[in-house]
Amino acid sequence: MKTAITPTRSENFSEWYQNLITAADLAENAPVRGCMTIKPYGWAIWELMRDELDKRIKACGAQNAQFPLLIPIDFFNREAEHVAGFAKEAAVVTHYRLKMIDGTLQPDPESRLTEPYIIRPTSETIIGDAMSRWVQSYRDLPLKLNQWVNVMRWEMRPRLFLRTSEFYWQEGHNAFATHDQANADARKMHGVYGDYMREVLAIPSIMGEKTPEERFAGADHTYTLEHIMQDGKALQAGTSHDLGQHFSKSFGIQYLDTDGVLKHAWTTSWGVSTRMMGSLFMTHSDDDGLVLPPAVAPYQVVIIPITRDENADELNAYADDLGTQLRNAGIRVFVDTSDMRAPDKMWKWIKRGVPLRVEIGAREMADGCVTITRRDLGKSSKHSITVAELMADVDGILKQIQRDMYDAVVARNQTMIHNVSDLDELSDALANGTIGFFRIKYTATQNEKFDALMDTYKISRRCLDDADSDYVYVAKSY
Amino acid sequence: MKTAITPTRSENFSEWYQNLITAADLAENAPVRGCMTIKPYGWAIWELMRDELDKRIKACGAQNAQFPLLIPIDFFNREAEHVAGFAKEAAVVTHYRLKMIDGTLQPDPESRLTEPYIIRPTSETIIGDAMSRWVQSYRDLPLKLNQWVNVMRWEMRPRLFLRTSEFYWQEGHNAFATHDQANADARKMHGVYGDYMREVLAIPSIMGEKTPEERFAGADHTYTLEHIMQDGKALQAGTSHDLGQHFSKSFGIQYLDTDGVLKHAWTTSWGVSTRMMGSLFMTHSDDDGLVLPPAVAPYQVVIIPITRDENADELNAYADDLGTQLRNAGIRVFVDTSDMRAPDKMWKWIKRGVPLRVEIGAREMADGCVTITRRDLGKSSKHSITVAELMADVDGILKQIQRDMYDAVVARNQTMIHNVSDLDELSDALANGTIGFFRIKYTATQNEKFDALMDTYKISRRCLDDADSDYVYVAKSY
Repeated sequence: MKTAITPTRSENFSEWYQNLITAADLAENAPVRGCMTIKPYGWAIWELMRDELDKRIKACGAQNAQFPLLIPIDFFNREAEHVAGFAKEAAVVTHYRLKMIDGTLQPDPESRLTEPYIIRPTSETIIGDAMSRWVQSYRDLPLKLNQWVNVMRWEMRPRLFLRTSEFYWQEGHNAFATHDQANADARKMHGVYGDYMREVLAIPSIMGEKTPEERFAGADHTYTLEHIMQDGKALQAGTSHDLGQHFSKSFGIQYLDTDGVLKHAWTTSWGVSTRMMGSLFMTHSDDDGLVLPPAVAPYQVVIIPITRDENADELNAYADDLGTQLRNAGIRVFVDTSDMRAPDKMWKWIKRGVPLRVEIGAREMADGCVTITRRDLGKSSKHSITVAELMADVDGILKQIQRDMYDAVVARNQTMIHNVSDLDELSDALANGTIGFFRIKYTATQNEKFDALMDTYKISRRCLDDADSDYVYVAKSY
Repeated sequence: MKTAITPTRSENFSEWYQNLITAADLAENAPVRGCMTIKPYGWAIWELMRDELDKRIKACGAQNAQFPLLIPIDFFNREAEHVAGFAKEAAVVTHYRLKMIDGTLQPDPESRLTEPYIIRPTSETIIGDAMSRWVQSYRDLPLKLNQWVNVMRWEMRPRLFLRTSEFYWQEGHNAFATHDQANADARKMHGVYGDYMREVLAIPSIMGEKTPEERFAGADHTYTLEHIMQDGKALQAGTSHDLGQHFSKSFGIQYLDTDGVLKHAWTTSWGVSTRMMGSLFMTHSDDDGLVLPPAVAPYQVVIIPITRDENADELNAYADDLGTQLRNAGIRVFVDTSDMRAPDKMWKWIKRGVPLRVEIGAREMADGCVTITRRDLGKSSKHSITVAELMADVDGILKQIQRDMYDAVVARNQTMIHNVSDLDELSDALANGTIGFFRIKYTATQNEKFDALMDTYKISRRCLDDADSDYVYVAKSY
């Protein structure tokens, strides 16, 4: 059977993903090392994802603010683990002027900065510095801040959305009077992310704490949400960090407590990024292109009038009118009255993953009917209904698509989580080409034999099992 | 009379502005040369400004997208005027890794980029490059794109919001088949900005075309919106550029026309930035602090219960309940039940410019009354009304404040626009300390005598008069 995307997922998952991005017109590689340009259709998805998460973050009491893009090298240097984690991928600003020298435009040597800046890879340091001024007394705590910004981590092997030098994210940074409060905040946001991914992105998460080996550079505890892709690999979709007093001590975030004693605050940070879009696309899409959950689809419904020369105007006007009715009912709709052929329109919107397709031919217009097809189910769901039924049911149909998409991923994931009793069983499974997550005793991984398996199969510890932290999930990852 | 902000506007406008920003908790200087940190209250104002403008931009058919932060030096170099305009303030990225060398963290020499990047000062070049791929046929036009991003222009004399090295803006970039369409787009957006500033920011604009001397680097026509500050200086609040074929020729943005001929497109760009916040603050505020138009006030109403120890709980609960009622009516409300003294609360919210203050004492609670005070009018507007009246009228009161604030600026501006018949009259007025905009024949400014006046009084041509382009407005500016 011919598919809209070639190769198919089973033929070559990695190339399928790249062609999916192109076919759905989501993004392209930019003429800047490792960076991407997010095209309008891709950015519209991100805006929906962002706006919904922003509401949930604000509902938790965090306030948005905006901190500088550039970080003084001295700030960056104050927390040893942090430097070790990010120095190798830092874009460095060394000059502030260009000059034409010998016919070539180049950094003006006279504008050399005595202290270079790096472009933020994350903002614990510069926000820690601000907090050291903003936090004075116990009355100033908790302080809960968030920002939606671009960050940069130089990337040698970029992949659109999954790993790019510049990416977009929200980063929450928070200070508390006690360690318990800080840890509770990191855990709470971990839960908020999990709910969001389930309810909005229709993606179930494996949720748990990172092992010490995999923690964020400068954290005491890192909580992660791991998604299982269709090829069985893990994608880390979001993390929350309990930073202990690492940053409050490096930056002097201190408060005068009720007992009159000056104490260091306890901080957290948490974030999700455009990487989550990579998960969204890889989790739901199929060999015909993108499949979007209605909650984040720029167009939840596309209306395609099947016109002939003699009825085009009338049918297009009828389709436009139906589009307006749906829009007034709060549905995001696109009415495709372009001059493309109807099958080309159909494939265009299949590839772009619009959840519900509504086709109208001349006879249907006369009968007050339309033909609807669910993107997630394809041809098997194609059937005729009256316009009145569509108007009454459309909201319910979209909600059903959202639920069914989530359930389908849950069912698929169950086939991709494997309990293994020891390293031999793990080794055999990997050698046999078994894909997915492997659940194994954490202590069983703390030896050189496991290190050798990590090297051979490019696997890593994803997180401890929340239900039983003696166990760890192991998988290949993006 | 004691004022909340010292010095007052008439004593020292520049220092007043700086203290206003601090008193209203809007922003602070960042530990990065020329950059600012926008604090939560300031950023909440920007989010309201941004969301409303974003709606209007989308209603014009532009789609949001996201282009890289970094621009290859070669791109930047392709349009000669553009380079000349921005090279002197470009932050340059030269390395992509840090290394500890002799105990100092510094750019790793081995990570030196053969082609450095600059941080975007504006994105005509990198978007021009994308358009050269995205535009192929007349069917692809018009192409209307917009992005909300941070940009950087190295600033030696920074002032919060007015002039900072990093700032935040939207930049629209558009391609058309004909020059007429491009010019109409630049003019249309000029009008959209004017409407937005009048209706949302309550600021009237002097609107017109820049003279050739003041055009954007690489534009055929630049349309500008100039605001008159309370000290008579001009603030350029937004510009739209008809870029002719400068960028389409530099970047090869070509389309196959209906006649089968390959033609260069015509492009435009237009933008407004966080600088507009500087105008908002300087236009409306007074010696007691910020005054915000209701349309962009994070809290349109603040409720202050005047509690005593014995009734605090009851009164706070009553105030909370009134806050909920107002919120349900769609009003943005803050109920200040903190443990500060009532006068301190009052001054806090006066300084932060909340449009309507609602105070409730014990007797008022018993009587079902509240005392309301408009921020823009101050004490003279203070009076008691019933809660029922408040609920019925609050929307109307806020709308009235929005209108009155605009009308007050219009009236003040009229006293600050001066017609002068020749350079002698202009020179005399400036020597006498007359503040404001001077309207003079454009031809009268095209000589060395005017150049000398520009030097002496730091004045510049702001724009031609839209009603009669033989005349130009001249003023000092921010």
